[in-house]
Amino acid sequence: MSSDSDQDLGITNRKQYNTGEWYAEVVQKAGLANYGPEGMSGFIVTRPRGYALWEYIQQALDSKFKSTGVQNAYFPMMIPESYLEREKDIVEGFDPEVAWVTHGGHDELEERLAVRPTSESVIAPYMAQWVRSHRDLPLRVNQWCSVVRWEATETKPFFRTKEFLWQEGHTAHKTHEEAWDETMRRLEQYAELYEDLLAIPVLKGQKPDHDKFPGAHTTTTVEALMPDGKSVQAGTSHHLGTSFAEAFDITFVDTNEETQPAHTTSWGLSWRAIGALIMTHSDDQGLVLPPTVAPEQVVIVPIWQEDTREEVLEYAEGVYEELHEAGIRVELDDRDERNPGFKFNEWELKGVPVRLEIGPHEVADDEITVVHRPDGESTVEAREEIADTVESHFDAVYAKLYAAAEQNLEENVREAGSREEILGTLGPNNGYVKVPWCGEEACEEPIKEPLSAEIVMCPFDNEEAVSEDDECAICGEKATQTAYFAKNY
Amino acid sequence: MSSDSDQDLGITNRKQYNTGEWYAEVVQKAGLANYGPEGMSGFIVTRPRGYALWEYIQQALDSKFKSTGVQNAYFPMMIPESYLEREKDIVEGFDPEVAWVTHGGHDELEERLAVRPTSESVIAPYMAQWVRSHRDLPLRVNQWCSVVRWEATETKPFFRTKEFLWQEGHTAHKTHEEAWDETMRRLEQYAELYEDLLAIPVLKGQKPDHDKFPGAHTTTTVEALMPDGKSVQAGTSHHLGTSFAEAFDITFVDTNEETQPAHTTSWGLSWRAIGALIMTHSDDQGLVLPPTVAPEQVVIVPIWQEDTREEVLEYAEGVYEELHEAGIRVELDDRDERNPGFKFNEWELKGVPVRLEIGPHEVADDEITVVHRPDGESTVEAREEIADTVESHFDAVYAKLYAAAEQNLEENVREAGSREEILGTLGPNNGYVKVPWCGEEACEEPIKEPLSAEIVMCPFDNEEAVSEDDECAICGEKATQTAYFAKNY
Repeated sequence: MSSDSDQDLGITNRKQYNTGEWYAEVVQKAGLANYGPEGMSGFIVTRPRGYALWEYIQQALDSKFKSTGVQNAYFPMMIPESYLEREKDIVEGFDPEVAWVTHGGHDELEERLAVRPTSESVIAPYMAQWVRSHRDLPLRVNQWCSVVRWEATETKPFFRTKEFLWQEGHTAHKTHEEAWDETMRRLEQYAELYEDLLAIPVLKGQKPDHDKFPGAHTTTTVEALMPDGKSVQAGTSHHLGTSFAEAFDITFVDTNEETQPAHTTSWGLSWRAIGALIMTHSDDQGLVLPPTVAPEQVVIVPIWQEDTREEVLEYAEGVYEELHEAGIRVELDDRDERNPGFKFNEWELKGVPVRLEIGPHEVADDEITVVHRPDGESTVEAREEIADTVESHFDAVYAKLYAAAEQNLEENVREAGSREEILGTLGPNNGYVKVPWCGEEACEEPIKEPLSAEIVMCPFDNEEAVSEDDECAICGEKATQTAYFAKNY
Repeated sequence: MSSDSDQDLGITNRKQYNTGEWYAEVVQKAGLANYGPEGMSGFIVTRPRGYALWEYIQQALDSKFKSTGVQNAYFPMMIPESYLEREKDIVEGFDPEVAWVTHGGHDELEERLAVRPTSESVIAPYMAQWVRSHRDLPLRVNQWCSVVRWEATETKPFFRTKEFLWQEGHTAHKTHEEAWDETMRRLEQYAELYEDLLAIPVLKGQKPDHDKFPGAHTTTTVEALMPDGKSVQAGTSHHLGTSFAEAFDITFVDTNEETQPAHTTSWGLSWRAIGALIMTHSDDQGLVLPPTVAPEQVVIVPIWQEDTREEVLEYAEGVYEELHEAGIRVELDDRDERNPGFKFNEWELKGVPVRLEIGPHEVADDEITVVHRPDGESTVEAREEIADTVESHFDAVYAKLYAAAEQNLEENVREAGSREEILGTLGPNNGYVKVPWCGEEACEEPIKEPLSAEIVMCPFDNEEAVSEDDECAICGEKATQTAYFAKNY
C-alpha cells in the first residue's frame, strides 16, 4: 500500500470540463503510469497497475490469435535504413518520425539503423526466405514488442507516446481474397476485444485512400467514440496487396508450377487500448474498470467499532477465502489505521468494480452489502453462495459500462448534407458526422482546416449507404461512399 | 509444413568434433532462428519454433515471480546518457557496448540516448519516487523486454547476440539481509527453472569480486556445464547494496522516523537459457527437447501400405483425439507424399521427444510402439489408457535427459592444487577445476592468459570448502575461498 498523503487521493480536474487534465490525473493517481525521465519527454513508465491491464489484453488477444493459426516470433528491433527504403511508401510514411541509432559502443555505424517504427520491412525479407511453395502458405507470424515513433506532439499516456507497446501480425497468402479474409478476421478479433473485454462498442470500416498505411491496398480500422466526442483509432488491419511482396520478393510456386507474388497483410493493436479503456469508463472519482480486466475485481471493506472488530473481521475473512477459492481477484482491506470512508475513496480511485461492505448488521443478518463502482448502486445480498452472487454483479457492472458507452455512441452519430451542416454539427457537438462523399481528399480539407476533424472511416456497407442519387456533401459530385467525420486522438 | 528439400534435413556437422558449427546448423535447420539481415550482424530472427521455447520459459518464470510478490511493469527502452553517468560503475561497465540514438526524425537530439543495456539507471529514479516509508517496502518490479549490448565478438544465436530478450527484476528492501534473501530467492528460482523445466543441473555460487555486476555488492550466478565442457552463466542475481540507492536517492523513513537508504537487488535471465537447452540435449540428428518445453510433445507416424491405409489412419486418428483431449501437444503426420523414414528424420531433427508408430501390427494387436527421441529406445504399449502411458514416457524421457546432463557435470568437476595442475587439467579436459584461492584477481591471470579459462564462480559453502591450512593454488598465500575455473560461453 502506498503511503501517499490523503490529499493525493482526490481527482481535482473534471472529466466534462477539462478532459485532458482529468485523464492525466487519473492515470497518475490511480498508479497506472508516470511520465518519462527528464530529457525523455514523450516516454512513459508503465507501473504495475497499468501493465496488468496490458497483460489482460495480451492474454485475450494472444489466445484469439493462436486459436486461428498465428504463431509468435521475434524480429530485430533495429532496421537498416536501406531496408526501409526498399518500400518507398514506407520511407515516405515513417521517415519524419524515425529514431536513428548511429553509434555502437565507441564506433560510428557504417549504415544508420532505425529503431523499428513498424516491422514490415524487416519481416518481409524473411517471409521471402521461408515461403517457396503454395504449401508454405498461409504464413502467419505475430510479435509483441515496443516500437518508436518520434512524434513531436504533446504526450498523452497510452494514447500518444514516442515508444509504445503493441502487437504486430504479418501474414502471407496465396490470393487477394485470402488476404482479405485474414484482414477482416483480425479486425473482427479487435472488435471482439473491445466489446467483450473492455466494454467499448466500436465501429468497423476502412480508412479513406489518402489515409491508408503506407503501401497498403486497404487499411481497415476499428474506431471507438470517447465520452468527449473524439474518435480513437483503436486497432488497424491492413491488406497490403502485393506491394511488399514485390518490393521484398515474397513469391511462391503455385499448383501449376508458376511463380506468383504473395498477398500480405499486417495488423496491429497497441496500448492505446488502455487509453480508450480509462477514458471511456472513468469518472471524477477516478478510475473505473470492467471486472474483466480489473487487477482487483472486488474489495472487501469491513466496518467495525472496537467491540465488533473481531466478529466483523472473522466474517470478512471467511468471505475473502470463499471468493479467493472461487478464482475471484479479491482484496480484503483490513488496515487498522484507515477508516472505511478513506478506504472507499482509495479503492474507487483505483477502479475496483465491486465493493463488499461488511459491518455488524451484515454479520447479524448473514448478509453482505454489494456496491457497484460505476454508479454506487447498493444491494444487500445473502451470505450464502456469495461467489456466484458476486459473479452476477460482475456481469451487471459490465453491462452498465457497455450500455453507457453504447448510448454515447448511438447519440453521437449525426447526418449532414453540406459543408455548412457538417461544420454546424461538428463544431458544437463533436461525435461522428456521416455524409455522402466523392472519395477525393480535397473534399476533406474544408472540414479539416477549420475544425481539425477528418474522415476517420468509411463503413463497409457502402453499397447500402450511398444511393445512386447521392451527392458528395462538399463538392456536389456523385458520392461513392459514406464518410464519418470526427475529431480524433 | 516447410517445403525444404530433402538434403536440407540432415545435420552435417558433428557435435563432438565441431560443436560451434553443429550448434549453428541445429538452430537453423530445426527452424529456431535465422541470422539477422545484411548489415545487422549480431542480430537474430527468432522463428516461431524458437520463440515457443521462450514462451514456455516466460510462463514458468513469470508464475514463480508472481507467486512471490513480483509485479510486471514497463520502463522506457532508451536512457539519457546523463542517467547512466549517475552511477559511475554502470557507465564504466557498459559504455563500450552501448548503442546510441542520436537523431529523432530529422533532428539531432540535445542529449544522446542509450538503448538500454540494462535498466537499473532508469528504474532507480522511479523507485526513489515510489518509496517514501518503510510501508512501501519491499518493492518488486520485473520487466520482460529486449536489451542491446554492442559486442563485437562472433554471434552465436541465443548465446551471444547484440540484442537479446530477457527479464530484469528490480527490488528495494529495508535491510541488507532482506535484500540478500531476495537475491537468493531469485537465484533459487533460476536453478529450479533449469532443473525442473529444462532438464539441466546447475551450480550455484557467486562471481569473484572483480567480475561482479558494475556497482553490485555481490553477484550470484547459476552456471551450467555444456557437453563441450564450457560453462554457461545461465542467470545472475545481484545484491546491489546501497550503491544505486545512494546514487539515485532511494530512501525511506523507518519506524523510528529516520531516513535510510534502501537496499536494492536486480536479477536477470535471458534467452541464453534457450542456447543452453539446445546445446545440452541435442545430438547429430538434430534438436532434442524435454517434453516440458517441446512445441510438439508427441508425433504420431502412421505406417501403411495401400491396402492398410484406411484402418491404420482411423486408428491413428483415434489416438490423436485421445491425446489431444488429454491436453497433450500432439501432431499426427498423415502426409501422403512422404514415407515414414522421411517423417522420422524430420521430427527427430525438430526435437519431438516421443514418437508413436502405428502400423497394421499395432492395429491388429491393439498396441502402439513408443519411441524415445534421445536414445531411440522403443517399447510396445497397450492402446488402452494411452494418454497416461504417454505421460509416463514424458517423465522417462525427462529423467534420461537430466541424468545424462548430471553425469556430464559430475564427471567434469576436478580438483587441482597448483597452477601446473590447473593448466594440465583444464587444457585437455575442459570442465570445472576447483581450487583454493586467495581472492586476488592477479591469481586468475596465469590461467586466463594461456587458456582463456576464468573463475566462473565460487560456491557459497566456502567455510566448508576452504580449511585453515589451505593455500591459494597460484600464489601460495592463505586461501579464502574455493574457485571454479572453466572456459565459458
